[in-house]
Amino acid sequence: MPAYATNMRLKFPILALILEAVTIVLYALLVVYETGDAHGHDGSHAESNTSHSSSPMTLYPMFQDVHVMIFIGFGFLMTFLKRYGFSSVGINLLLAAFGLQWGLLLQNIWHMHEGKITVSIEKMINADFSTATVLISFGAVLGKTSPVQLLIMTLLEITVFCINEHLVVGVLGVSDVGASMTIHAFGAYFGLAVARVLYRPGLRNGHENEGSVYHSDLFAMIGTVYLWMFWPSFNSAIAEPGDAQLRAVINTYFSLAACALAAYATSSLVEKKGKLDMVHIQNATLAGGVAVGTCADMNIQPFGAMLIGVTAGIISTVGFKFLTPILASKLGIQDTCGVHNLHGMPGILGGLAGIVAAALGKKESVSATYQACGLASSLGFALVGGLITGLIMKIPFLGQPPDQNCYDDSIFWEVPEEEEEHEERLTHGDYSKNKAEA
Amino acid sequence: MPAYATNMRLKFPILALILEAVTIVLYALLVVYETGDAHGHDGSHAESNTSHSSSPMTLYPMFQDVHVMIFIGFGFLMTFLKRYGFSSVGINLLLAAFGLQWGLLLQNIWHMHEGKITVSIEKMINADFSTATVLISFGAVLGKTSPVQLLIMTLLEITVFCINEHLVVGVLGVSDVGASMTIHAFGAYFGLAVARVLYRPGLRNGHENEGSVYHSDLFAMIGTVYLWMFWPSFNSAIAEPGDAQLRAVINTYFSLAACALAAYATSSLVEKKGKLDMVHIQNATLAGGVAVGTCADMNIQPFGAMLIGVTAGIISTVGFKFLTPILASKLGIQDTCGVHNLHGMPGILGGLAGIVAAALGKKESVSATYQACGLASSLGFALVGGLITGLIMKIPFLGQPPDQNCYDDSIFWEVPEEEEEHEERLTHGDYSKNKAEA
Amino acid sequence: MPAYATNMRLKFPILALILEAVTIVLYALLVVYETGDAHGHDGSHAESNTSHSSSPMTLYPMFQDVHVMIFIGFGFLMTFLKRYGFSSVGINLLLAAFGLQWGLLLQNIWHMHEGKITVSIEKMINADFSTATVLISFGAVLGKTSPVQLLIMTLLEITVFCINEHLVVGVLGVSDVGASMTIHAFGAYFGLAVARVLYRPGLRNGHENEGSVYHSDLFAMIGTVYLWMFWPSFNSAIAEPGDAQLRAVINTYFSLAACALAAYATSSLVEKKGKLDMVHIQNATLAGGVAVGTCADMNIQPFGAMLIGVTAGIISTVGFKFLTPILASKLGIQDTCGVHNLHGMPGILGGLAGIVAAALGKKESVSATYQACGLASSLGFALVGGLITGLIMKIPFLGQPPDQNCYDDSIFWEVPEEEEEHEERLTHGDYSKNKAEA
Repeated sequence: MPAYATNMRLKFPILALILEAVTIVLYALLVVYETGDAHGHDGSHAESNTSHSSSPMTLYPMFQDVHVMIFIGFGFLMTFLKRYGFSSVGINLLLAAFGLQWGLLLQNIWHMHEGKITVSIEKMINADFSTATVLISFGAVLGKTSPVQLLIMTLLEITVFCINEHLVVGVLGVSDVGASMTIHAFGAYFGLAVARVLYRPGLRNGHENEGSVYHSDLFAMIGTVYLWMFWPSFNSAIAEPGDAQLRAVINTYFSLAACALAAYATSSLVEKKGKLDMVHIQNATLAGGVAVGTCADMNIQPFGAMLIGVTAGIISTVGFKFLTPILASKLGIQDTCGVHNLHGMPGILGGLAGIVAAALGKKESVSATYQACGLASSLGFALVGGLITGLIMKIPFLGQPPDQNCYDDSIFWEVPEEEEEHEERLTHGDYSKNKAEA
Repeated sequence: MPAYATNMRLKFPILALILEAVTIVLYALLVVYETGDAHGHDGSHAESNTSHSSSPMTLYPMFQDVHVMIFIGFGFLMTFLKRYGFSSVGINLLLAAFGLQWGLLLQNIWHMHEGKITVSIEKMINADFSTATVLISFGAVLGKTSPVQLLIMTLLEITVFCINEHLVVGVLGVSDVGASMTIHAFGAYFGLAVARVLYRPGLRNGHENEGSVYHSDLFAMIGTVYLWMFWPSFNSAIAEPGDAQLRAVINTYFSLAACALAAYATSSLVEKKGKLDMVHIQNATLAGGVAVGTCADMNIQPFGAMLIGVTAGIISTVGFKFLTPILASKLGIQDTCGVHNLHGMPGILGGLAGIVAAALGKKESVSATYQACGLASSLGFALVGGLITGLIMKIPFLGQPPDQNCYDDSIFWEVPEEEEEHEERLTHGDYSKNKAEA
Repeated sequence: MPAYATNMRLKFPILALILEAVTIVLYALLVVYETGDAHGHDGSHAESNTSHSSSPMTLYPMFQDVHVMIFIGFGFLMTFLKRYGFSSVGINLLLAAFGLQWGLLLQNIWHMHEGKITVSIEKMINADFSTATVLISFGAVLGKTSPVQLLIMTLLEITVFCINEHLVVGVLGVSDVGASMTIHAFGAYFGLAVARVLYRPGLRNGHENEGSVYHSDLFAMIGTVYLWMFWPSFNSAIAEPGDAQLRAVINTYFSLAACALAAYATSSLVEKKGKLDMVHIQNATLAGGVAVGTCADMNIQPFGAMLIGVTAGIISTVGFKFLTPILASKLGIQDTCGVHNLHGMPGILGGLAGIVAAALGKKESVSATYQACGLASSLGFALVGGLITGLIMKIPFLGQPPDQNCYDDSIFWEVPEEEEEHEERLTHGDYSKNKAEA
């Protein structure tokens, strides 16, 4: 691969500025504030028939929790790689910043009033949600893609997501309050399909940068803990106010607590010496939040949520230990962050739990059949959308890094030269000069 | 101590899964959502007679602040040790995840309605609170205990805490809105009693891992600053809505601000060269939040809160400098995080301030005598409960690490081998190969 | 410079304790809680005529968001320097803890009721705001000043800020809801004036400590992302409830999203190899929050906010690349954190945007002329106040560090000796002894 291919100087700024310019033009034509009388008649995520209290700011604390999950949670969760922290948290910010603008447009294009989209806090929450799909897929291809490729993925994935969400939630009326199917399973399988298309035989035997260092694992725990804490907000933010919203909070709280114990136990169990593995703790403790998503607002009772959480924690940990290596070696799917274990399988589990709960009548006017259709639709759009998107991302001009520069910030970032400097200092014994004291 | 004793492969997963299974069974039998009419008649912490606004989500932002204190605050505060960050933030998550499930059960077992415990946001806040006792005690034994020992401590300590809280707040009607006595002093002296029982003569002269590195101190500051910022939520979350809750916020805000100045000043004053010590800054700046807890909702006026904060900041810093070494050398109490200085003495100070404030009539229908009983009860339950718990934790089978492996994650965690690798790289001079650029 | 000059043992504790003691006396005389009837009639920031809902806690979640920006956001943003993280986050806490006490007094001294200042959540928000000016100026002189100098700067800068704010917002009735002029431009130019007076020719050619290491840049991203996420709260916290507050949230959300894309694009564009520069990402992505501040609550529509954000992102990045070196070499202004690019120019841009928006009638009863006076007043007070404050801070006795100890925590902090230890370990080959496993 020739050297210029990864030089982003022209193609990245031009793409980013064109995307932003087009977005601004569309906003100038279509997007206005929601005002006075309209408050409380949002009807989104994107089409559910919720009605919030009349203050336009009621959902604002929920919005900020979700915002923290998107930008701190997802961003820092991926900083576990020793040389890829700048990209993890930095490109996460870039993709989400563009994605929320694009998502808000497309989620609301289906039901404008007098040719205008009105922005409310609830629509901002949904816009943030739409970016989560991209950030999940980002985890699957982390370290092996360029910012240009990822901006294109953001554009396409959010577009596909909005179509599927409109179909599943809007047209079919499927219940998916915490978006196990429409966000988590969708984002994971979309990303895995992209990863399959971008398969790199050269990385079959691993890469020296594809590991953590002690402090990078601690940075990742910032992401983990924020996701873990605020997941009740993710699953309840757009629930029907009142009892349903409270149920969504409570179910998620207990599912995650039970999931944490299961993940710790399983992590110790699958390791020869019984030690805990940071990869499991950083990820599998969160699977309970994913899996309880679809039925978070249903009447499954706290112990039901806990059972879902325990199941998710076990499945996820086992997946990291045994399934991820097989996916890479047998199927050519190199899933950097293991999104299949955190979002993929737990997302499907969530969809299945929703079907069962619907069949048991845990939420009024929710049909098991339609729930199953919602799951199938989400998986189908994800796989097809991901494959097509992957093919587009494979165009050489888009700056995909060569194998030897994967998982390394320095190909797209100015990186401080700390280690060489340190080495030199040791060699020349001149370290002490920094320590002069007045 | 034989090698197998610290292999957690069977005993840890079995214990964790049994605890979770028992919990789920009890929840299936006893725990349901709070619904409709019941909102606003919680009457908890666990028994105070508060009545919140009728929306079930009113306290949710407060809950999330407390949640952040428990999982980010306590977790990262303890990451200051150079090789014990995984355990600090990771085991903190494990213990709190189990503790909140257990705490919610036991706090509400005293007053069920028709044989059921109903879950509300306020009860989730109280469940989070109950875990704080364990996390404080964890700080006293940090680095010297196994996950199995700590799960047992969690089970026992929360049980004792719930009995004492029921007695003090429920039966005696003692006022302790920010829980200086029932959480902070209780957690500290419980942990110190456990630490006394687990005394290790082999660590009398310190341990090479019992110190920080530059970035571990910065990680710890994340914990410090979050605790500092959200402490007003901790002290006001379950206060009577209206003026009392506002007072709790304001008093805590000013107590902490004044405490910070006192802690910085004292830290510089007690050091030969006048330099600031990170241990003091990470901990003593928070003592004002602890000490103002009991009288946070009382009419002590902002300047009264500031005086409490200044006193706590000075006492705490002086304790770290002069008292902690004496406790270790003379009394055999090796208090890793100095919880005696952050939670113990400031907790007692808070109890005493509450007695004085009650005597001065700063809160209606609060009796100085009963306040004194509440303090005595909390200390008594803590010391006796801690001693018994410590004896149980001392059973060899529970995986207590040998002295030479204390304060070292690698005995219970897979740890990335960064330093050896770095060393090797320097030796072989092959570092540059990572730096190939396309 | 003689050795004793930087020993803080007496002068720092004495100054800090005197400031705190004076503050407590003033609070005992003047400050009480707001109670019952008074709720909702605050009229602050400091004088705008807002009326909030009758619950005293309505603004509390907003307050906590702002609180996080002040203590985590500003604190960690400045941890990018490799050896100055303790000071960045630690002295940030110290200055803000004192500043909020002082700010609350001075902001409300102009309009007491019956000789008393009543504290409410809104006044706590404004007190936090007042500290932001100091933290911005701190960024300009970061690494080159002592805690004693900085406490004096806090005292003086907040005093000048309160006078200017009273004049601009209170007397002239200028609209500046997100404080582009009164906080950001003011804080930046105040700090730059101080930096000019404290000019150090010895640092003309840079300093070996004035750079980042890999993980210090990640710590700084914690600050960046929190500021980015919560900026909508900063700009809307004291807006008129209802549509105006919603507009302030929405405008800031979109301005920042658009700004992020512009900052990334420009960062890549100005660098020879097209790589992203962490300094730009950490700072210029936030310029959209600053620049949309003045007209955040005005009817500029989302696309207007996005245009402001894009402009700010470009200006800020270009400023870091080309203007900062010129300021240092030609004007003798050594701006450590580049506050001119993040707060200075975007603050002026915000003021100008407010003038234009006022002229276009985007907010009722706001006059373009008065807006221009507000900008001029803020710049004037900042420059004159900063020059005088700088001259006072230059008094040798105040412990300014010598050039060779700049940007180094170890002159005012106990710092763990990790690197030497590491070096020794490599030399003596005794590293492995830490790795004994049971």
